[in-house]
Amino acid sequence: MRESILAAAIQLFAEYGYHAAPLRDIARIAGIQAASIYHHYPNKQSLLVEIMTTYMQQLNRQIEHILSEYDEPVERLQQAITNHIHLHTRYKAEFFIIDTEIRSLEAENRLNIISLRDRYDELLQELLRDGMERGIFRQSDVKVTSYAIIAMCTEVATWFRSGGRLTVQQVIDIHCQMIMQGLLIDQEATLKQRGLS
Amino acid sequence: MRESILAAAIQLFAEYGYHAAPLRDIARIAGIQAASIYHHYPNKQSLLVEIMTTYMQQLNRQIEHILSEYDEPVERLQQAITNHIHLHTRYKAEFFIIDTEIRSLEAENRLNIISLRDRYDELLQELLRDGMERGIFRQSDVKVTSYAIIAMCTEVATWFRSGGRLTVQQVIDIHCQMIMQGLLIDQEATLKQRGLS
Repeated sequence: MRESILAAAIQLFAEYGYHAAPLRDIARIAGIQAASIYHHYPNKQSLLVEIMTTYMQQLNRQIEHILSEYDEPVERLQQAITNHIHLHTRYKAEFFIIDTEIRSLEAENRLNIISLRDRYDELLQELLRDGMERGIFRQSDVKVTSYAIIAMCTEVATWFRSGGRLTVQQVIDIHCQMIMQGLLIDQEATLKQRGLS
Repeated sequence: MRESILAAAIQLFAEYGYHAAPLRDIARIAGIQAASIYHHYPNKQSLLVEIMTTYMQQLNRQIEHILSEYDEPVERLQQAITNHIHLHTRYKAEFFIIDTEIRSLEAENRLNIISLRDRYDELLQELLRDGMERGIFRQSDVKVTSYAIIAMCTEVATWFRSGGRLTVQQVIDIHCQMIMQGLLIDQEATLKQRGLS
């Protein structure tokens, strides 16, 4: 029953937004009486918190696992990109809610969810910093780089269609190449030509 | 008066979501009678359409200008990144609405807004394709690359604070470097080591 209620909440929050999705509609779609929903969740806010917590924790557990399993920076980053794109294309509605409804969290809940998100950012930043210290990654602003990588991998969920032109693995490979190698073919020549080296 | 109504709509759509922002609250914040709003906008949907159209058109006009003013691919891409980050950090709420409320557009309006967004994607793709054909940019999937660049530059608006650690120009420079050069210092050696070349 809790699962049907959660599934209905995910559907309505993603389609209409948190504030425009009444509890009675969530109950109707879950197939229960509006009053019975309170046996499972004290209020609508607790549904939002559970959705956000569940998927942020899953993201965090998986990047923690990658950091402990792998050591080489390029391998770690490939694994982190793969994991991020897999989870975001699999749980599209859930992560859309995480990305758009932080605004709808009450103060204490907001702090908790933001600290889960900060934890994820920090783990990716640790990975990047280690690669820079080991001379594999170019020195760059670690925070900005982590936000950029997260943004481009999150965005995949908005356009990717399973059965479309590209497989998930192809999309992952393109992202890895773009992030690690960049767009320029002859980096030295281009920088020299533009007076940057 | 139209401008106060638009400003109030932008504030409420961004804060609560389109469906949860009643016209009477928009009127109250704009400082007019609820009934008077209909002299300016026939309904709430027309407000959403005007917000989205105005800022998508501005984005398109500016990238068209860049493509006609500059010829060299690296220069063009730098200008496009600069323009995207400037507009998104300046009109944060407006672009947040564009990014999250396509779901709330009625059928015909949705087609119109999506075609404006497609136009922007196509212009950036034209820029990238030209750079690849001229041997400046690495051959890669043009569509996926354009979505990734747009995503990371759009994301800046969610964390950038004017007066914070970095200036807009520094953020732009970091993005240009990341997109064009990538993360790897010694690309050839790394690829060889991983058996990829």
